[in-house]
Amino acid sequence: MFEGVIEKIRKAEKVAIFNHESPDGDALGSAYALKLIINALGKQAEVFLRQGDERTREYKLIKGTEPLGLKVEDCDLKIAVDCADFDRLGEMKECFSGNTAAIDHHVTHKEFAEATLVVPDAPATGEIIFDVAEKLGIEMNQDIASNIYLAIICDTGNFKYSSTTSKTHQVAAKLMEKGIDIANLSKQVFDTKSIEYLRAYKMGIDSLELFSNGKIAILAITEKDFEEMGVDEVLIDGIVDLPRSVEGVEVGVYLRERTEGFKISLRSNGDVDVAQVAVVFGGGGHKKAGGCLIKDSLENAKKKLVEEIEKQLR
Amino acid sequence: MFEGVIEKIRKAEKVAIFNHESPDGDALGSAYALKLIINALGKQAEVFLRQGDERTREYKLIKGTEPLGLKVEDCDLKIAVDCADFDRLGEMKECFSGNTAAIDHHVTHKEFAEATLVVPDAPATGEIIFDVAEKLGIEMNQDIASNIYLAIICDTGNFKYSSTTSKTHQVAAKLMEKGIDIANLSKQVFDTKSIEYLRAYKMGIDSLELFSNGKIAILAITEKDFEEMGVDEVLIDGIVDLPRSVEGVEVGVYLRERTEGFKISLRSNGDVDVAQVAVVFGGGGHKKAGGCLIKDSLENAKKKLVEEIEKQLR
Repeated sequence: MFEGVIEKIRKAEKVAIFNHESPDGDALGSAYALKLIINALGKQAEVFLRQGDERTREYKLIKGTEPLGLKVEDCDLKIAVDCADFDRLGEMKECFSGNTAAIDHHVTHKEFAEATLVVPDAPATGEIIFDVAEKLGIEMNQDIASNIYLAIICDTGNFKYSSTTSKTHQVAAKLMEKGIDIANLSKQVFDTKSIEYLRAYKMGIDSLELFSNGKIAILAITEKDFEEMGVDEVLIDGIVDLPRSVEGVEVGVYLRERTEGFKISLRSNGDVDVAQVAVVFGGGGHKKAGGCLIKDSLENAKKKLVEEIEKQLR
Repeated sequence: MFEGVIEKIRKAEKVAIFNHESPDGDALGSAYALKLIINALGKQAEVFLRQGDERTREYKLIKGTEPLGLKVEDCDLKIAVDCADFDRLGEMKECFSGNTAAIDHHVTHKEFAEATLVVPDAPATGEIIFDVAEKLGIEMNQDIASNIYLAIICDTGNFKYSSTTSKTHQVAAKLMEKGIDIANLSKQVFDTKSIEYLRAYKMGIDSLELFSNGKIAILAITEKDFEEMGVDEVLIDGIVDLPRSVEGVEVGVYLRERTEGFKISLRSNGDVDVAQVAVVFGGGGHKKAGGCLIKDSLENAKKKLVEEIEKQLR
């Protein structure tokens, strides 16, 4: 499974690394870990981000982001990490041709590279990058370990999600031997909140409504609310978990108003399959997380959602 | 280090297990894991709690709490787990005599048992219990693994605190092989909030004040606030982390009014030693967490605290 990609890396001289649009911690940590791993082999490598990709909190925690002056057109190998399909490369699609490879953990991965390494059991692409480092025989150092650790905690909610495996902890054990500042990483990623986020959270608590004997919680934020808060929606996206976090709630719903309608995120505690609900409204997802768009009044949207969720509760 | 306690367990027939007053997840998980481990040796064992100790969320997640009918007075060995000194046994002190042992991870442990096993490097007593199971040669099962896992995540903030080590992850890796429902445990412990907690959190956000260019955040809850919320202080104790969680804050302060004055909890992000601040007001603690009591008006208490914290910020 690893051979094709490992072979390409061994043969390459200069490697260009890409990840998916709006890269999260796993996409960033995996890409920069791979850059440093390839550097450790004595080869040149660079991660090519889209403009604006470096404005996230996760990016600031990444090691090895200093540019090395390498240009995409000079690279003889292109590797896409944590990218489930070609389109998710965004504006980097045009650079991704010639000698190509992909390293990913998405079960939905659609092959688009010459050599593909997909491990769907890995909760994060970072865990696969750890194995790539071992196969290449490089010695793990603190910066590589820190990037892989960041990638893993971002995609497992700091070892909380059910996708976490025994192997994930084995990898974390080996990474920690390199002396990572885990308390700082987890604090920055999970336990640091902007004043804007806290204000939105407060408003979220105010707007929380419970239905079906407290089994359904709905949080709705209208365009007017966003204006009053003066906050960008992406800055408060963690609020999607608030409704489900209420004791006794089985399905949490987060509605926010868009010009095209209400964008709906559904989160289940595990027993209710919210994808079944999302599908009714033309959306999709999986058992624990789904999404859809409803073009209707806020009241009607809530009413219809509660009706459909109740069918699944029974 | 392990010999004395292991020897006592091997020789015993009936074992009574105790933990500290107001037991947290580590105290409960460690005690019930040890009970099941001793059962696996073919011996009787029971955990003896104080009245009310079973009313916590963590207790509901423990395996093996069904009473076996064993009485304290029939036991030929008493073991205290996660209990740093004799007084913390509370009303169980009177039962703790004769053939005794203690298993603990507190660096401040004051020996009070005949045989003592203290591992200060362990972030949770649960991690020591794992080693005890290995030394006793019992086969780990799902219930024991689940209790130890709970103990560890409760005392490490789900592998977030700097006390977490490479070994902690090695233990977690072995426990997970037994098929623990980690997503449910972490959700119940860390990501489930009562409506009362959310209301208090909202009020906390409202009352947050920033000082010293946003490096100090103070949250104050008065007796009147508690009355209006109609909520017990212990139900919202997680709110202590709110002030420090604000972006840019180095020291977070939580003040709540008591009849005897303002009870103060100080939390540092790591650079400021808050024990130095607490000591000024007759309190104590360690670098990252300290506490004290201030008998003064709310305004004066805040002013004095900011003054002392600023000395440490410089």
